[in-house]
Amino acid sequence: MMYCLSVSHKMAPVTIREQFAFREEEKREFIEILSGKEAITGIVILCTCNRSEIYVSGTKQAVSELQQELAEFKKVRLEEVLKYLNIYNGESAIGHLFKVTCGFDSMVLGEDEILGQVKEAYQISKDMKTVDYEMNVLFQRAVSCAKRIKTDTNLSKTPLSIATLVANEVFHFENGNECKKVMVIGMSGKMGTTITKNLISKQGIEVTGTVRKHNECLTVNIQSDYVKAVDYKERYQYMDDMDIVISATLGPHYTITYEDLSKVLKDKKKRLFIDVAVPVDMDASIERLEGLTLFDIDYFETLSKNNTDIKLRELDLANAIMEEELDAAIKEVVFHPYIRRMDELKAAFTGKRLESLLFRVRDQLKSDELKVVLKTLDDLESWIKED
Amino acid sequence: MMYCLSVSHKMAPVTIREQFAFREEEKREFIEILSGKEAITGIVILCTCNRSEIYVSGTKQAVSELQQELAEFKKVRLEEVLKYLNIYNGESAIGHLFKVTCGFDSMVLGEDEILGQVKEAYQISKDMKTVDYEMNVLFQRAVSCAKRIKTDTNLSKTPLSIATLVANEVFHFENGNECKKVMVIGMSGKMGTTITKNLISKQGIEVTGTVRKHNECLTVNIQSDYVKAVDYKERYQYMDDMDIVISATLGPHYTITYEDLSKVLKDKKKRLFIDVAVPVDMDASIERLEGLTLFDIDYFETLSKNNTDIKLRELDLANAIMEEELDAAIKEVVFHPYIRRMDELKAAFTGKRLESLLFRVRDQLKSDELKVVLKTLDDLESWIKED
Repeated sequence: MMYCLSVSHKMAPVTIREQFAFREEEKREFIEILSGKEAITGIVILCTCNRSEIYVSGTKQAVSELQQELAEFKKVRLEEVLKYLNIYNGESAIGHLFKVTCGFDSMVLGEDEILGQVKEAYQISKDMKTVDYEMNVLFQRAVSCAKRIKTDTNLSKTPLSIATLVANEVFHFENGNECKKVMVIGMSGKMGTTITKNLISKQGIEVTGTVRKHNECLTVNIQSDYVKAVDYKERYQYMDDMDIVISATLGPHYTITYEDLSKVLKDKKKRLFIDVAVPVDMDASIERLEGLTLFDIDYFETLSKNNTDIKLRELDLANAIMEEELDAAIKEVVFHPYIRRMDELKAAFTGKRLESLLFRVRDQLKSDELKVVLKTLDDLESWIKED
Repeated sequence: MMYCLSVSHKMAPVTIREQFAFREEEKREFIEILSGKEAITGIVILCTCNRSEIYVSGTKQAVSELQQELAEFKKVRLEEVLKYLNIYNGESAIGHLFKVTCGFDSMVLGEDEILGQVKEAYQISKDMKTVDYEMNVLFQRAVSCAKRIKTDTNLSKTPLSIATLVANEVFHFENGNECKKVMVIGMSGKMGTTITKNLISKQGIEVTGTVRKHNECLTVNIQSDYVKAVDYKERYQYMDDMDIVISATLGPHYTITYEDLSKVLKDKKKRLFIDVAVPVDMDASIERLEGLTLFDIDYFETLSKNNTDIKLRELDLANAIMEEELDAAIKEVVFHPYIRRMDELKAAFTGKRLESLLFRVRDQLKSDELKVVLKTLDDLESWIKED
């Protein structure tokens, strides 16, 4: 049977999650320790910033041994360990693994970064030869289920966050140039930082971000060759060179006015201006300037709302896929011991009369179970006839 | 499959129930008509003052044929029939039959008069040879289930109504005489009537009931040799002869005072006085009179409350019995066709390899069903080994 010990964002604050985090070497070290235990026949450790989860398979003692080893390894008291842990057994552990792998247990529902993390965690244990038959089946099936959801649904392709939606607009903006020059006004703010990080995740984008000079130096917390910080006051002098300008400050004033902008834009090229500030940062009349398109926060909020509707629909689809794959996985695990027992079973049933077996079944089972067995008989009979 | 068409106190007012009521000859007549229908292989008609229910078994067409015939027989429009009908199919019809027979669908929960009525309804159809295998099984099992509940629980022996509790006190009152003489003051009132009906349901009780003379005549709506009506004003002159006196009027005045009673009671025998009126009818100080015991409404309300608690506990027990018997009945009905098919099944499975059958089962079933089948295999194997 598989078990899962989970410390996740659902149960534990970040300070606790950090206590149970595993660095790469720690993972290997702890896997070594657990693989020496008799009760434990399989181990996978999954550790992301939102969760630390240890999957083990083995006998009933596996969980308590794991808890004790974990407390010792992490130098915490056992009671402390238990307080923040969720423990899943058997089918609920399998169900949990599938939910996690498919991104249904993530902070951002349906995100697919977790899929890579599960694959990696599984690969480490596989390389260390610490996964048994059951875990092999379950992790491989969970990963292929998540891939199927990724391929067959638009769940992970339907962003809801404004920063991602803004970055997507930039990615889709086409002006024929190989490299897009983007200015982010208010780059050191929360929204500005997230947008900038999103932007430089793809190639061919150069960001010029404005920061306030009174921060004394112009560095920001994004280290990249494709990001340059400039003084906010000097923003207009870079603007003519830009393809896209995004403004996301918290201040009450326009960061871009029609009058100032019209003076500096010499090149009449296609430009995208994006204003995600509340209150607005850009004077709406700048849209009158030749070549310029302006998107404001309303545009992105409508997008986000529509995506929410899509996401809910896709979620149903994804759930149905997961249920199906989960059921198949449980079946494989449940059925496996019977393959080994086949000869023994055959021997037991040899020469037995169907009547006596069926009457026994009728007398012993509940009516719901009896119906399943009889339906199975019918299915088998018609299958044999079709053959 | 069995079906049940029900017009009961739950859905239909009494005027509608009357429309669908069947007198003895009508029952036989309608059973004759239905037994001519091809789709119908079994018929039982249950008709009490609270419900008219027609149970039929047969093919899918059985219900619609029944509805049409019922509309024609009762000279009502089909839409009118449908409006007040509950239709139960298959297992829900079986479940309903058990509930009804055990008194779980009665106005007084757990009453057992209905058991006799179900037996009678079944017997009529049995005599007319209009019950098929399925109905035979189901009605016999429902009746024996109700009997088991009656024997094994105190459900029907735990009355809650004040009138029944009062009558029980009278039945349990022992003074050595073969015949108990009971006076009911206020016999024509609702409570007085119910108590009187309860009393004369047993032998050895003679009721003298007071009614108001200004009702002009002294007749009451109970016709019995054991009930005599007297004028309320003359109540004291019969009282010395009585063993038990019950008062249940709605008036604000005492119907019995200490002063008047002490004058008329000559015989110092053991007597029971019961006052179930609110406000009280009997002066509490009459209890000082020799041989006299007085019970007031508080006494019966406490009894009723205690019985409610008992009844709720017994109800759990009765429910568990019913679930068990119901499951056994469903199993018998579900299994029955397979007895006939046994040879055919044996032939189909002859020479088939267990592996190929089991792999087929794994691929076709849901995991929940697969688990039932595999568990059944295990059970059979260990049963064979034990043998």
